[in-house]
Amino acid sequence: MIMARRLKMRTNKVGLPPGTLVHVGDERTGPVRVTVVDYDQDHLRELCPTTLDMLAEFKTSPTVTWINVVGVHSPEVIERIGGSFEIHPLVLEDIVHTDQRPKMEDFEDYVFIVLKMLNGAREGREDGEIRSEQLSLIVSRGFVISFQETEGDVFDGVRDRIRKSKGKIRRRGADYLAYSLIDAVVDNYFLILEEVGEELEVLEERLLSGPTPDASSQIHQMKREMIFLRKSVWPLREVISRLSRGESEIFEEPTEVYLRDVYDHTVQTIEAIETFREVLSGMLEIYLSSISNRMNEVMKVLTIIATIFIPLTFVAGIYGMNFEYMPELRWRWGYPAILLFMLLSGAVMLLYFRRKRWI
Amino acid sequence: MIMARRLKMRTNKVGLPPGTLVHVGDERTGPVRVTVVDYDQDHLRELCPTTLDMLAEFKTSPTVTWINVVGVHSPEVIERIGGSFEIHPLVLEDIVHTDQRPKMEDFEDYVFIVLKMLNGAREGREDGEIRSEQLSLIVSRGFVISFQETEGDVFDGVRDRIRKSKGKIRRRGADYLAYSLIDAVVDNYFLILEEVGEELEVLEERLLSGPTPDASSQIHQMKREMIFLRKSVWPLREVISRLSRGESEIFEEPTEVYLRDVYDHTVQTIEAIETFREVLSGMLEIYLSSISNRMNEVMKVLTIIATIFIPLTFVAGIYGMNFEYMPELRWRWGYPAILLFMLLSGAVMLLYFRRKRWI
Amino acid sequence: MIMARRLKMRTNKVGLPPGTLVHVGDERTGPVRVTVVDYDQDHLRELCPTTLDMLAEFKTSPTVTWINVVGVHSPEVIERIGGSFEIHPLVLEDIVHTDQRPKMEDFEDYVFIVLKMLNGAREGREDGEIRSEQLSLIVSRGFVISFQETEGDVFDGVRDRIRKSKGKIRRRGADYLAYSLIDAVVDNYFLILEEVGEELEVLEERLLSGPTPDASSQIHQMKREMIFLRKSVWPLREVISRLSRGESEIFEEPTEVYLRDVYDHTVQTIEAIETFREVLSGMLEIYLSSISNRMNEVMKVLTIIATIFIPLTFVAGIYGMNFEYMPELRWRWGYPAILLFMLLSGAVMLLYFRRKRWI
Amino acid sequence: MIMARRLKMRTNKVGLPPGTLVHVGDERTGPVRVTVVDYDQDHLRELCPTTLDMLAEFKTSPTVTWINVVGVHSPEVIERIGGSFEIHPLVLEDIVHTDQRPKMEDFEDYVFIVLKMLNGAREGREDGEIRSEQLSLIVSRGFVISFQETEGDVFDGVRDRIRKSKGKIRRRGADYLAYSLIDAVVDNYFLILEEVGEELEVLEERLLSGPTPDASSQIHQMKREMIFLRKSVWPLREVISRLSRGESEIFEEPTEVYLRDVYDHTVQTIEAIETFREVLSGMLEIYLSSISNRMNEVMKVLTIIATIFIPLTFVAGIYGMNFEYMPELRWRWGYPAILLFMLLSGAVMLLYFRRKRWI
Amino acid sequence: MIMARRLKMRTNKVGLPPGTLVHVGDERTGPVRVTVVDYDQDHLRELCPTTLDMLAEFKTSPTVTWINVVGVHSPEVIERIGGSFEIHPLVLEDIVHTDQRPKMEDFEDYVFIVLKMLNGAREGREDGEIRSEQLSLIVSRGFVISFQETEGDVFDGVRDRIRKSKGKIRRRGADYLAYSLIDAVVDNYFLILEEVGEELEVLEERLLSGPTPDASSQIHQMKREMIFLRKSVWPLREVISRLSRGESEIFEEPTEVYLRDVYDHTVQTIEAIETFREVLSGMLEIYLSSISNRMNEVMKVLTIIATIFIPLTFVAGIYGMNFEYMPELRWRWGYPAILLFMLLSGAVMLLYFRRKRWI
Repeated sequence: MIMARRLKMRTNKVGLPPGTLVHVGDERTGPVRVTVVDYDQDHLRELCPTTLDMLAEFKTSPTVTWINVVGVHSPEVIERIGGSFEIHPLVLEDIVHTDQRPKMEDFEDYVFIVLKMLNGAREGREDGEIRSEQLSLIVSRGFVISFQETEGDVFDGVRDRIRKSKGKIRRRGADYLAYSLIDAVVDNYFLILEEVGEELEVLEERLLSGPTPDASSQIHQMKREMIFLRKSVWPLREVISRLSRGESEIFEEPTEVYLRDVYDHTVQTIEAIETFREVLSGMLEIYLSSISNRMNEVMKVLTIIATIFIPLTFVAGIYGMNFEYMPELRWRWGYPAILLFMLLSGAVMLLYFRRKRWI
Repeated sequence: MIMARRLKMRTNKVGLPPGTLVHVGDERTGPVRVTVVDYDQDHLRELCPTTLDMLAEFKTSPTVTWINVVGVHSPEVIERIGGSFEIHPLVLEDIVHTDQRPKMEDFEDYVFIVLKMLNGAREGREDGEIRSEQLSLIVSRGFVISFQETEGDVFDGVRDRIRKSKGKIRRRGADYLAYSLIDAVVDNYFLILEEVGEELEVLEERLLSGPTPDASSQIHQMKREMIFLRKSVWPLREVISRLSRGESEIFEEPTEVYLRDVYDHTVQTIEAIETFREVLSGMLEIYLSSISNRMNEVMKVLTIIATIFIPLTFVAGIYGMNFEYMPELRWRWGYPAILLFMLLSGAVMLLYFRRKRWI
Repeated sequence: MIMARRLKMRTNKVGLPPGTLVHVGDERTGPVRVTVVDYDQDHLRELCPTTLDMLAEFKTSPTVTWINVVGVHSPEVIERIGGSFEIHPLVLEDIVHTDQRPKMEDFEDYVFIVLKMLNGAREGREDGEIRSEQLSLIVSRGFVISFQETEGDVFDGVRDRIRKSKGKIRRRGADYLAYSLIDAVVDNYFLILEEVGEELEVLEERLLSGPTPDASSQIHQMKREMIFLRKSVWPLREVISRLSRGESEIFEEPTEVYLRDVYDHTVQTIEAIETFREVLSGMLEIYLSSISNRMNEVMKVLTIIATIFIPLTFVAGIYGMNFEYMPELRWRWGYPAILLFMLLSGAVMLLYFRRKRWI
Repeated sequence: MIMARRLKMRTNKVGLPPGTLVHVGDERTGPVRVTVVDYDQDHLRELCPTTLDMLAEFKTSPTVTWINVVGVHSPEVIERIGGSFEIHPLVLEDIVHTDQRPKMEDFEDYVFIVLKMLNGAREGREDGEIRSEQLSLIVSRGFVISFQETEGDVFDGVRDRIRKSKGKIRRRGADYLAYSLIDAVVDNYFLILEEVGEELEVLEERLLSGPTPDASSQIHQMKREMIFLRKSVWPLREVISRLSRGESEIFEEPTEVYLRDVYDHTVQTIEAIETFREVLSGMLEIYLSSISNRMNEVMKVLTIIATIFIPLTFVAGIYGMNFEYMPELRWRWGYPAILLFMLLSGAVMLLYFRRKRWI
Repeated sequence: MIMARRLKMRTNKVGLPPGTLVHVGDERTGPVRVTVVDYDQDHLRELCPTTLDMLAEFKTSPTVTWINVVGVHSPEVIERIGGSFEIHPLVLEDIVHTDQRPKMEDFEDYVFIVLKMLNGAREGREDGEIRSEQLSLIVSRGFVISFQETEGDVFDGVRDRIRKSKGKIRRRGADYLAYSLIDAVVDNYFLILEEVGEELEVLEERLLSGPTPDASSQIHQMKREMIFLRKSVWPLREVISRLSRGESEIFEEPTEVYLRDVYDHTVQTIEAIETFREVLSGMLEIYLSSISNRMNEVMKVLTIIATIFIPLTFVAGIYGMNFEYMPELRWRWGYPAILLFMLLSGAVMLLYFRRKRWI
């Protein structure tokens, strides 16, 4: 269970003073990779800085800079970047502890935003489990720093648009870039939900053809995934709502209308999740009542067979008794008569069941 | 499932820059049809413009103009209309992506309203499914532009009233026209709900005559329809409430009292949906308890039959044994005596069951 | 089902312009009856006006006038009364469409209040169904106009008090009269709830003596009645709360303390309904678990009988076999021995069941 | 059922003008008893006034006066007391109608508070039912009038403290006295809840040793008691919250900190009730699943016995047939062979059941 | 049950005047232990004062002082400490009555905070029950007094950091110390939740391998623990939220950002608890449906066996009858023919069951 794993990791740092950067998250190794995209309407520069000191220059440059940090398991790197851009130690701690809820915090010079990025639909669910990673954004007037846990993200579209000067992204500031990243994350939720919806349809069809023992556990598995998704998306709504209401001065007014658009998408996502949950509850009810129906059917078969044959067997038993004085046994037509009687009894029973609509 | 289908379509545009007009909705072809109704208290002009350029003139004309666009699958058409009337690109995007929640957005010169129009009751449910399409309204001081997805709408009454100068519609402005359209959409919900109510009564009667295996799935089918309807109507309440509170200056005060009337209708619709949901939940409970009852009844029949005849068969079995020294077998009245004993046992059993009220 | 019937009627007017007076409600015929009670502290005049024109004079008279209109199925009458007292067309429409939710609307010169009047307990539930009719009140400074759907109301007490100059009603204005009418309606809810409570007790006692198949449907019937009642009372709370907070200037301050009293009664009514619903839910759970218990008991009887006699029958079957070489059959004490063995087996079984507390 | 009884009594006064004092509550007779405790820091006077006229003097005396009225079934007494202290008629009506919800009403000269007093735990539940009576408090600057329905209250501790000059009660005003009375009522809830908690433990232990048919109805009985208790305590929270926020000027600031303390206790009471309800729901689930378990066990026994012996009986039946040409019957070892075969079949069955973990 | 025990203790003090210090909590004996840590950035002094009079000096000293009181069962000690630091009597009462809900109260000179400390995970759950004790904090400008019920707390990390001058704790004031204590308490919740999560996983795996009778009661046991935990954590959220919003002047602005961090942790804790509850509910549903499944399976086995062999036994019974004229008995191939017939019947039955997918 994801929950327990997360909690376990969290506890590694219990007892340490606040602001201590201990990575809380899945164990990861390897170097931290930093890429920089620096652009204005006319120029575009992409580079992979060899030293972290190079980053400081982008803090005050008039261009828009997107610094993407892949891997947050190295406290030193985070600390140095934090130092270059004067980020509050608790923010750095939140970046490193990747079990945060989505949230936004408005500092004077920058906004700190935490999101949950669901790793690309197909890829991320290979083992049947939705995996999420924490995306932390530091948005300031001239730059956006994004921290993600692993390689592989949902930003290829944004990169393309910057490179090809498509859309208005090159004409706008860092707040629009931040919006584009958030938008990409939220759009990706739709991909995940689409897959879940398809699974749901498959499950539903299987359910209609008859209850299988594993259907119940699969329904519950999906229910739990919905709980997990809701936890990722629900607080995001509040975050984007606050951004779109202009709570931070970093996000300027022309961007707010775009944020309202993302907000609408987030609400749609939440609604879809809630709908899926209601549908799953309904499916569970169908499952349970179809089990009851089936049990009913089994009981009816048993009852019909037993009710017809047990009395007949008793009659046969009577004439199987060895009493010396049983006059019927000697009658010429005794045997055919009793057979006829049995046949009639059985027929009467069958009629009775038909009247009761059991058959 | 509608949900999944919608989500699928939605994902086609993931990764594109915001403001890109890619049609998100059921695949539709054929030309987009535009009709114009232009009127004031004294004059009325209806036309099907041959070129979109003709539309621009209505933007500033002193008359009230209703431009109805049927089909939103052609981005170019939407873009050109949007250009003529200076509509924000994100609004155009929302018009084209027909999976919006009902909402209103107040721009300076116009109000953008999204509704869900349920396609005319009888017709729209032919295959047992309620179908909805998105109705987008651009309401400005002198004109209303309505975008619907397919031919066939619920506005014939409004058209009649304009043509016949019936009611006050010809004496009032564009805001009253917009109100009339919204009112027609909401009134149509009552038709759908009436049909659902009738189905519910049929289902209920069938349920009272005994639980059938498909009743459960039908109840759940209707429950899901209610979830679907609620999703269409619930946000509408907020939209109309905001309009009727005069949040937008486009809607003038004399129209607000009419909007409050629509608001009341929307609340009634929501209440009816909620009541239907409660009734459906109750019916499911009745269904499940009637299955239990029936199982109980089946079990009782089995138990009565088995409890009476199994012991009797045993007695018959005893006298069917082939021991040499079984004195009873030779008694003159052994056979009648044992028959009598069996009869009495059975009678005692029956009395016992009657005392227990099983029969 | 009430719901569906109402909706059906409602749809008759879909498509008509707002403000069109088409009666929405149960089909009713016969003349509309209008009675007038006109009083101040010293004088009292009761009359049944022969023409509607007579009513206009009461609009400006210094006395308090109560015009009671029985029957709203005649649009002309409503329209003419509305004309005499300058009532807004949408208000008249709401009076005629008797499927409104309880609400209040404050116009400058009058307050429009819609209530649900439950027709006198005993009488109104003769066929086991609570019937409600819409009571519309127009309250102005000098007069109250009340519209009810049928003959028979809950205002006899108010009429008595006016006639006998009992209480303070004759010394107070039209707002106090309106309060008295609302109070009578709310008080009547208690009568209905008392009856429901008695039914509930009867049902509960029946349930304790054993589950009957119709108990479940009766519980659900009552649950639905509670849903119906709640829909009538719940919005009323908001209505009276707004009146008692002095939102309208028609209701003067001395009357507000009385309205707070009615408000308390309304809250009590809602609480009683909620309690009844919880009690009904509990009864359903008792019902279901008593069905389970009973099934359990039936199963036990079957199992005891079968478990004792099926093995014994098998033993008897063995000695009923016709093998030539079965030495036991020839033993002198074989038969008594086997009988004893059977007896002991049965006794052991019984002891086992007793240990398991099945008997 | 308490609910219905209350409602019944309530309806006796339907139709009477507001402010009419008709006792609504359990029928009670006998004289109304009035006791007066008058004190300041130095003096203490306790008396049972012979005439009600004597009370008026305490209205303006500088000492703190506690007038306790036992019995509210005599409208004349209430009316005369109300007259002496200038109490609003609707307040007097609320005192006499003992079916009020807990509430507070702030008049200029006094505060009117309604509480539900649960009659002393042990005593009050003798017949297994929690009984409540209405306690009405009129709190003014120099006096507190308390109205209770019957003899026997929870104020002995308060009386002691006044008499023995213990605590600060003698040094403080009437508001502190009122606080002390409310505190005593709330503290008494803990006694009731403690008893309920003990009952719950007993019930739980009984449940663990096996489901008894009456456990379900006892759980529901307790659930209903919790509904009843919640109805008494829930509105009280609001009442005390408003008092402690200083909404009334009668309660001075130094007393507010004490009222916050009572507020905390009320919240604790509500939480305990909610916890009990959740625990009871859990117990019901345990009960139902243990019934299912038991049914399962019964079914297993039946199935094991039937599955083993029915086939064997069939085999015995075969060799009980009377065909002339059945060679096996003549074999020397036929009988032992068939016995061995039966034994083996039975053993195989048992192994199968063991593999399925049925035994 | 914890609840009942607590309530019992609580009732010991019913009837006493407010402010009376009677210990409400588990009976504890032994001396109260007081330790003092006094520090500023440069100096550190730890001592166990021999007399309580020594404490008064720390009230005004410019250093930060942490006075930790272990054991609140001695009213005199609490009273004397309260006297030295001028604490309100009701606060002292709340310290001694250890059944408070988490709360904060802002007095002018100090803040009073009540928390629930869960005693160190492993240790505290030895007997399978989460135990909590009340931690009361008095936070003033120069000192923090903490009251805990027993030896053993979660503050070792804080003590270490003070001693080793690690982190910024020595450079900050008393409000930061209070924050550190609260942070340690909340961090400890994660340890408890981690253990619960592990238990949950074990329980889940056991459940998947088949329903055991005790699984249901274990699920309910854990559900109840979650109710208990939620009661401890839920009000804490409000407490920390108020502190972090700067409601008290004791907590200065630089500390507020740290409190917001604790607030986030508290919300995470609550979410984890809610998730666990949902997971437990899901597990109960799985449990119940797996019981149903198993019952279904048992029924099928019974039905298959009975349906095949009961009719065959009847056939055998027929040919076991002793009629004189039964021609089949004399046929040469009668016996093999009837055996063949039986075999075929059985085969047909099996095919029928296979078609119905029962086997």
